[in-house]
Amino acid sequence: MDHTTRRYNGPPGQEDMPYLLTPGPLTTSQGVKAAMLADWGSRDVEFRKVVADIRNGLLAMAGADETYECVIMQGSGTFAIEAALGAFCPSGEAKTLVVANGAYGDRAAKILEKIGRPVVKIDKGDSAAPTPEEVGAALDADPAITHVWVIHCETTSGIVNPVTDIAKVVKGRGRRFMVDAMSSFGALPLDMRDGLDVMVSSSNKCIEGVPGFSYVLVKRHMLEMSKGRSHSVVLDLYEQWKGLEANGQFRFTPPTHALVAFHQAMKEHAEEGGVEARGNRYARNADLLVKGMRDIGFSTLLNDNEAGPIIQTFLTPRDPNFDFEHFYESLRMRGFAIYPGKLTKRPSFRIGTIGKVDETVMNGVLAAIRAVLGEMNVTDLSPLGA
Amino acid sequence: MDHTTRRYNGPPGQEDMPYLLTPGPLTTSQGVKAAMLADWGSRDVEFRKVVADIRNGLLAMAGADETYECVIMQGSGTFAIEAALGAFCPSGEAKTLVVANGAYGDRAAKILEKIGRPVVKIDKGDSAAPTPEEVGAALDADPAITHVWVIHCETTSGIVNPVTDIAKVVKGRGRRFMVDAMSSFGALPLDMRDGLDVMVSSSNKCIEGVPGFSYVLVKRHMLEMSKGRSHSVVLDLYEQWKGLEANGQFRFTPPTHALVAFHQAMKEHAEEGGVEARGNRYARNADLLVKGMRDIGFSTLLNDNEAGPIIQTFLTPRDPNFDFEHFYESLRMRGFAIYPGKLTKRPSFRIGTIGKVDETVMNGVLAAIRAVLGEMNVTDLSPLGA
Repeated sequence: MDHTTRRYNGPPGQEDMPYLLTPGPLTTSQGVKAAMLADWGSRDVEFRKVVADIRNGLLAMAGADETYECVIMQGSGTFAIEAALGAFCPSGEAKTLVVANGAYGDRAAKILEKIGRPVVKIDKGDSAAPTPEEVGAALDADPAITHVWVIHCETTSGIVNPVTDIAKVVKGRGRRFMVDAMSSFGALPLDMRDGLDVMVSSSNKCIEGVPGFSYVLVKRHMLEMSKGRSHSVVLDLYEQWKGLEANGQFRFTPPTHALVAFHQAMKEHAEEGGVEARGNRYARNADLLVKGMRDIGFSTLLNDNEAGPIIQTFLTPRDPNFDFEHFYESLRMRGFAIYPGKLTKRPSFRIGTIGKVDETVMNGVLAAIRAVLGEMNVTDLSPLGA
Repeated sequence: MDHTTRRYNGPPGQEDMPYLLTPGPLTTSQGVKAAMLADWGSRDVEFRKVVADIRNGLLAMAGADETYECVIMQGSGTFAIEAALGAFCPSGEAKTLVVANGAYGDRAAKILEKIGRPVVKIDKGDSAAPTPEEVGAALDADPAITHVWVIHCETTSGIVNPVTDIAKVVKGRGRRFMVDAMSSFGALPLDMRDGLDVMVSSSNKCIEGVPGFSYVLVKRHMLEMSKGRSHSVVLDLYEQWKGLEANGQFRFTPPTHALVAFHQAMKEHAEEGGVEARGNRYARNADLLVKGMRDIGFSTLLNDNEAGPIIQTFLTPRDPNFDFEHFYESLRMRGFAIYPGKLTKRPSFRIGTIGKVDETVMNGVLAAIRAVLGEMNVTDLSPLGA
């Protein structure tokens, strides 16, 4: 094994933990993890201050003015998505339009169906971006659509959807605009004042915290109107908000360690230079990775103007010696955990370019990929099924 | 300040973190927290092994045979409670009987109402234990009751309910028996084979992990029958189980750090001597605390044969100089976070005796209480409202 490619990420005694080149959980800084070395009382004044700091900091990072609120929800990102859909999407005659171009749009539509909220879908498959024009046409064709749900970065492919342009056509037609910014918030520019009524993201994405909670930024009057509308007690955003506002405490036990780690992650995000600097680092990672992979002979699913800096989809090579499981495990043995593909039609795999990783890590994974392909005797890198 | 009472719990740089004498989040060991110093990939084989170990270990700890399954749910304990109620409790004509003697019984009933499942309640107020006889009488009086929900240790008062005796009357009448063992599992003996169809607990209680997830132990055939019954996508226990069984992975991002910490906590639980040894340490803590508090002049809410070793409720003293907020903050400055009362009728406060705490900590908090009462000039410790 080529030891120059071994770049491991673990603490003392766990030096062999790989870098996580995935859409999350991600590699986080040692400072973020070290923040979890204390047990905080969930009702204590210091902890309540951490929670208030996080809520205010997220609003500021999103450019939200005083008409917005931030509500934190326990669980993974999908917990906040279901909470937001249950709080804000209409039942009865009115409908929610889900603009889907991958697994996360499909999941939002599935949740709406499960909780009995009428849903219609624009389905772009899993690698094409929706245009503002087709969203506008869908709204013009069906006045019963009152709410629109769009994914900012669809990690199924890594594509970045034009949410700001879509916001204009949605808000121009007087509808509510809701954005799943799970994988983008903190790295790609996003301003709530550009027509976003609702935005959802999670702790273990571009702000580089650990998994454990998610959060919803939303117009306060929409939260107020959502009283009693949730289909669930634990996922009830209105009650969660009321609890946090009443005494700064969660209704139900919060993931104290994950919150304190996120507080530290927000400090490190600001120290790095905020959203712009974070996004620039990820863009450097992505550029270096894509260029290196193309030099090796791999093809990307997306054109450079479609792909975001979050996660890159590479098409599986045609060479019969290429076996993804072997490729994956061999890379992991060298210190890099990549990610399987999720496309429905074309065999592919993904490599994330977010988390506490930089050019050195990208050069490391490229060297490891070259070495593993050599071991596997893979020479024909032209894509399968092309 | 009396420095002999200062026994702080934090890591280097955070030495002033107090011991958490609460029903959770608790004080955990340094080993449990140190396990969070690495970022694990949620799809990697080592992490899937951790998850499998946890699921199998919990089943073994509960005496469950091969007819039971363990399903982990992201979020606090209430998330698993809502998931279990939504999976297993009937809609239509059939009803669930909630045996309530405190806030957690009331919460279960509220969840059932919210999700449209018929519920009837035995309400014992907030400090009396239900008897098997009254549960049997309720079942005999209403054949539409098919499921019974009981709390093992109600932390509202700290009372331990006779679940094994109640199980006999419930199972003897052919009904489903479901237990909220949130605050007791891992410290009080509990065997699924004693008539428990469902048991729910969480990561940050007597097994001494950190908050972030909860879990349901349940008869496999009940899980199988629950397909499609959940009111929620994220809280759907059947789908969560199917996902874990299919490939050892969670459907939605798991709290990786909290799970790895819990894995370490289970090892330390076994090393201490399992449920019996853990329960014995807590009983020593509780005995020492209650004796010491009575020596000071405090009264307990419960008799010794009712109170469990989990959390102790003390009645607020009559002395006009006693101010709970001042008392609380002064104790916290000395390194001990206690807990407010939750009784609806009598002013009280609570002190938890679980977590990584021992006689030294109990002697510490007793010394701190003596010192703070002296500072506050509190002399009349007879209970208010008696």
